[in-house]
Amino acid sequence: METAHRGKQSFVFHDPPAILAFASVAGKKEADGPLGSTFDKTAKDTKFGQKTWEKAETQMQRTAMELALQKAGLREEQLDAAFVGDLLNQCVGSSFCMRNRNIPTFGLYGACSTMAESLMLAAMSVNAGYCRRVLALTSSHFASSERQYRFPLAYGGQRTPTAQWTVTGAGAAVIGSKGDGPFLLNATVGTIVDDGIKDAANMGAAMAPAAYETLRAHFDDLGTSPEDYDLIVTGDLGKLGFRLVKDLFSRDGVELEERYRDCGVLIFDCERQDAHCGGSGCGCSASVLCGHLLQKMRRREIRKLLFCGTGALLSPLTTQQGESIPSVCHAVTISTERS
Amino acid sequence: METAHRGKQSFVFHDPPAILAFASVAGKKEADGPLGSTFDKTAKDTKFGQKTWEKAETQMQRTAMELALQKAGLREEQLDAAFVGDLLNQCVGSSFCMRNRNIPTFGLYGACSTMAESLMLAAMSVNAGYCRRVLALTSSHFASSERQYRFPLAYGGQRTPTAQWTVTGAGAAVIGSKGDGPFLLNATVGTIVDDGIKDAANMGAAMAPAAYETLRAHFDDLGTSPEDYDLIVTGDLGKLGFRLVKDLFSRDGVELEERYRDCGVLIFDCERQDAHCGGSGCGCSASVLCGHLLQKMRRREIRKLLFCGTGALLSPLTTQQGESIPSVCHAVTISTERS
Repeated sequence: METAHRGKQSFVFHDPPAILAFASVAGKKEADGPLGSTFDKTAKDTKFGQKTWEKAETQMQRTAMELALQKAGLREEQLDAAFVGDLLNQCVGSSFCMRNRNIPTFGLYGACSTMAESLMLAAMSVNAGYCRRVLALTSSHFASSERQYRFPLAYGGQRTPTAQWTVTGAGAAVIGSKGDGPFLLNATVGTIVDDGIKDAANMGAAMAPAAYETLRAHFDDLGTSPEDYDLIVTGDLGKLGFRLVKDLFSRDGVELEERYRDCGVLIFDCERQDAHCGGSGCGCSASVLCGHLLQKMRRREIRKLLFCGTGALLSPLTTQQGESIPSVCHAVTISTERS
Repeated sequence: METAHRGKQSFVFHDPPAILAFASVAGKKEADGPLGSTFDKTAKDTKFGQKTWEKAETQMQRTAMELALQKAGLREEQLDAAFVGDLLNQCVGSSFCMRNRNIPTFGLYGACSTMAESLMLAAMSVNAGYCRRVLALTSSHFASSERQYRFPLAYGGQRTPTAQWTVTGAGAAVIGSKGDGPFLLNATVGTIVDDGIKDAANMGAAMAPAAYETLRAHFDDLGTSPEDYDLIVTGDLGKLGFRLVKDLFSRDGVELEERYRDCGVLIFDCERQDAHCGGSGCGCSASVLCGHLLQKMRRREIRKLLFCGTGALLSPLTTQQGESIPSVCHAVTISTERS
């Protein structure tokens, strides 16, 4: 068997797994944004009929999973595994969603990069024959994140200009060994990069170097360049981080130009919606991928996508202890063709 | 290629990855316990020379990783990937250990099952040819856990009889495609089981059903029975959970008897050391596996081991919200022979 390892940190899938189905769920603010019509389900009720925001997050995951399975024509018991995670302490959004479902479950923590991490591992497990059909699932919730990472909502704290708005949303994708695609061609696993940014209200600046490093490694490992992709999209760098990545590539003489976008910038009309630098959270890249982006791929408006999940691996405690912010970025190539 | 999938939730490794080296680090109480002499490094200083308990946890991981790499005769840059996680909110023990090391890193959250989850994914990635050499690494710390999950240490809270003592320890294993073993033969991925236990001071009772379900699935999927293993070991069920697993099997007419042990029971002399039901935490099964157990395998005193990481997937918040405790157990077969 030809080896799947490429260069420093990439894998190639010789039998590219297919995305059988995908679904996204989002909140009121997201429904009111530029991508509002692309989510499968939105709710005006921030609690999604639940008693707490944390349970609402579990409910969003449940809905995204059920919708994706329904579209794939599969039942839960036909899944060989699920790769799940979220931002809540101890990833309880995912664990509670998966309890007593009888689905073999791998818990992940990649902060906001989780959708890319789960897709990578899903593709790895299907391509290698460990699993036939698997689920990649994640979520975030503005209100549960605010109270866990920042301030109680009722406190009404002022947001800094570099702040981002955690997306209330979930995304689910079902990956299988057979299907019409889009297909997962390869993946680049991120290293953890910390360039010393200490401002927890400026995650874009903290994560941009990780995104740059992973993209560079991806192009080097696979011998590709930005021109080989119709679209390169980062998860949630927001306006500032997005600009920093463009600048970092410019210094190398590479102009990403119109083929580069960021899910955090796409999801909100930042000015009108008072979202400052844009969206963030696991649910940001998950709901944009499992809605807007994959829908465009189904319509062949995007044929080759480099999807890069970005995550800031800080905790409120590390910030209080004066630490800087380690970050990670994982990249997956998604294509309408099997090569 | 013969498929790697087996039964409901197991994988078989056709080219069994080898454990190239392993190392463990532990604290003072663990050094004073029955396995004290099996840890590579112990410290009387709970802070391991650091300013905070959280940084101490990162320091333990760093030391375990460095020792394991040293024993394997490898440098960090020779690792194709690391599978890491811990109990701290946002898994900061691991993320801070891995930052700026240039090692492709997958972040995991499996609560105290993390050592088994990381071994499974490490073996999956090596067996399939994605990686040549990878690291599985995890830790826990009594003091950082107490303040995060329970009470400030200075409060001096009374512990209930079913309480367990979070192990201060870390374990690291380097897995590769070539080597003299022990070898990773197969893995059974756990489903998330919640039988309604709500007492966060009784994790053994919460996790026992998950351990039972995974063991049952393992035996069914692979057509084995307890007699096929020299030792079956769960991660941190403690005295009560250990007895519950034995009872659950007894009801099926299966007596696990002397071939079944629990790392949480092995690591402390519970009476003398005031550890109540025994040890717990990611570091419990990690430091017992990457010391005591694998040392015994190297000496051929154990030839076939079924290593079962157990994790309670609760958070302090879900307990406050009146929720029960979802649990998981992942199992890996480790053998001195390649089959």
